[in-house]
Amino acid sequence: MTEVTQTVPSSQHSPDGVAPRHVVIVGAGFAGLACARGLAGHPEIAVTLVDKNPYQLFSPLLYQVSTGGLPEDDIAYPVRAAVEGITFRRGVVVAIDPEHRTVGMDDGSPLPFDDLVLAVGSTGTSFGVPGVEEHALQMKSIREAREIRRRLLQAYEDVESGHISPDLLGVVVVGGGPTGVELAGAIAELQKGLRREYPGSTQRASVTLIEAAPRVLSSFTEPSSTHAKEELEEIGVVVRVGEAVDRIDPHAVHLKSGETLPAGTVIWAAGVSGFDRWAELGKHDRLNRLEVDRFLRLGDGIWVAGDSASFPAGSGTLPMIAPVAMQMGKHIARQILAISRGSAPTPFTYKDKGQMATIGRRRAVVELPNGFRMHGTPAWLTWLALHVFYLAGGRNRISVVADWMWNYLAWGIGPRRTVLD
Amino acid sequence: MTEVTQTVPSSQHSPDGVAPRHVVIVGAGFAGLACARGLAGHPEIAVTLVDKNPYQLFSPLLYQVSTGGLPEDDIAYPVRAAVEGITFRRGVVVAIDPEHRTVGMDDGSPLPFDDLVLAVGSTGTSFGVPGVEEHALQMKSIREAREIRRRLLQAYEDVESGHISPDLLGVVVVGGGPTGVELAGAIAELQKGLRREYPGSTQRASVTLIEAAPRVLSSFTEPSSTHAKEELEEIGVVVRVGEAVDRIDPHAVHLKSGETLPAGTVIWAAGVSGFDRWAELGKHDRLNRLEVDRFLRLGDGIWVAGDSASFPAGSGTLPMIAPVAMQMGKHIARQILAISRGSAPTPFTYKDKGQMATIGRRRAVVELPNGFRMHGTPAWLTWLALHVFYLAGGRNRISVVADWMWNYLAWGIGPRRTVLD
Repeated sequence: MTEVTQTVPSSQHSPDGVAPRHVVIVGAGFAGLACARGLAGHPEIAVTLVDKNPYQLFSPLLYQVSTGGLPEDDIAYPVRAAVEGITFRRGVVVAIDPEHRTVGMDDGSPLPFDDLVLAVGSTGTSFGVPGVEEHALQMKSIREAREIRRRLLQAYEDVESGHISPDLLGVVVVGGGPTGVELAGAIAELQKGLRREYPGSTQRASVTLIEAAPRVLSSFTEPSSTHAKEELEEIGVVVRVGEAVDRIDPHAVHLKSGETLPAGTVIWAAGVSGFDRWAELGKHDRLNRLEVDRFLRLGDGIWVAGDSASFPAGSGTLPMIAPVAMQMGKHIARQILAISRGSAPTPFTYKDKGQMATIGRRRAVVELPNGFRMHGTPAWLTWLALHVFYLAGGRNRISVVADWMWNYLAWGIGPRRTVLD
Repeated sequence: MTEVTQTVPSSQHSPDGVAPRHVVIVGAGFAGLACARGLAGHPEIAVTLVDKNPYQLFSPLLYQVSTGGLPEDDIAYPVRAAVEGITFRRGVVVAIDPEHRTVGMDDGSPLPFDDLVLAVGSTGTSFGVPGVEEHALQMKSIREAREIRRRLLQAYEDVESGHISPDLLGVVVVGGGPTGVELAGAIAELQKGLRREYPGSTQRASVTLIEAAPRVLSSFTEPSSTHAKEELEEIGVVVRVGEAVDRIDPHAVHLKSGETLPAGTVIWAAGVSGFDRWAELGKHDRLNRLEVDRFLRLGDGIWVAGDSASFPAGSGTLPMIAPVAMQMGKHIARQILAISRGSAPTPFTYKDKGQMATIGRRRAVVELPNGFRMHGTPAWLTWLALHVFYLAGGRNRISVVADWMWNYLAWGIGPRRTVLD
């Protein structure tokens, strides 16, 4: 195992000269970072965290970057500043060899490991609907959020200068889960805010939310779904439930019912799945998530956390959300520490803390596992406080709060973000 | 002149049915916007403001975007929200025909005018030094500032992953005017802030400021230049005065003295000039600026403002700075109004309000025309207050102040912006 010790920076060697256990964490999202934080500062463990980006993305607020509410930097926090006492390696994992216990990297120099934590997140999935890849935008990265914002704002510029038809100010969001609901609400408010600046071209601006299930937010209780739908409609979103998308053209969404909705911007928020690439590592579910044992393991010393893991819960599996990812990452850190001390691992249990979705300014729905429900302003304030609390980094928190304060105070008067060159 | 009235939106028609005088302003910078604001709300005037970008760029703070102090959006303000009661047309002016009184646009539909205000700003100039265009970065747009930031941060990533030599953490800024001084100071502080995150690769990080004249800030008095040099050196900038650049290679700056400075990033801030394209409209100076009469006219109803105008002052001409541009734009607006009322125009006089440059956190030099000088913290506070005052838009002001407060409070602890994908 000399190779392992070579990859461990001298600052991470344990004082008694014994080579520390080397843990490679793949992915610096909610799961990977929670795991890295749990392991940092323990001299018997050396951690290498790998990600293709040098920042953690606070993805629950991506929709605000997409709609001009927040600048990109506010939701991207440097990984190196987020966890101390570990090694961060920027790069792409191209292979995983459980037998020889190495991770292959895109720069050709493999990373040996004692423990591997796979926390690579998820990707948007088209469910095979024609046109999604070609004509719809997804929202999983800063780059994609930037593109959504650019498209939304550019459409106004292009209509104003007569280059495109005003019909193309129509926006269709496919998928009535929390992401689709939050995005549709924020787009409706962005469109409202742009009326002053583009008085000639805004009559045709619209946003339609399409959900195949009979109600939006189908993981919530029915009263919350009803509130969400009503509040969306109040701020101008056209909500279409029980409608499935047949195919997407460059400028239109065709429904299975035969109806066609013209749209300059189509955003696909209808679901995510694990990455094909890693599905072959073990048994996986229909969403490409790896089926783990009750300790979150795929095999000895191979752990899976977050959206990559398929973990049974009730009649199904745990949802692909940040709280699950954080709890899994933390749990794995504890198990690795326990095992390194000769203790037995304990099974993972998810502590459900409830769920929430925000709908534009001052509206949200919140549900706690004890059946307690909130909506409207109190729910929105809860949403706000929790999101600020979980944002990494003081600078980001201050910037986000300042931007939100301004958004709140100057709604409809304050300028929206502009199309940058 | 029926064509003119066709281009004027009905909301801008004067109530007595007489076609309003149509003023086309080319360029939505400090000069163009000041002129547009001066003309807006007068029923006898219809204004069309043209720019290729839909925002006003607050260029005095571009260096902060380049060095991660501010997000891009904070210094770009939507033109349509900045001035009401005028028509904004997004596009590029491709021709100006003073005889037929039309402006040719890139979309093929010309704009007729009664008065034309040319306020197109300036561009970086290489002064013929080989390698500037190919290997140096300039800082005149959001796009260029973004690229500087990306290069500065990416160098750390590349050194950390072993892809490039640590020598390439060296940064050279060419030009010791306010822009070069402010940029070099901010880069030194960015490098200091990154030490914690990249402990292995920061020993070689450096920033060198090169100025051909015997002192930096040569438009200031000698004591201010001395203060600026001392303060730059205190925060770690290597200041080289009396050194001219011979040529720039991909990874080095060669001085006329024969010395070679290795550099991963070279930023050219050695000067700006007017655009070649419009120099043919009249007599121009060696910086391609159009020589205007004492009313800021090139000819009857053709006005020039800001960096595009060469206006005599003392033994030379007025400098290419924002206060000059704003005063010129305002003056032209007043003259157009006066002429439309049958009055005679009055000559332009520049009211010198002094000059200032900031040097990193809490350091600046300020000079007033009466000989009063400040440096250090009082000068910095003055700089800060004035820049916030002149920033367009409440949202931008609040965001900038919040970011600056945080930068100030958490210097050296707070994370810097990260490389985004």
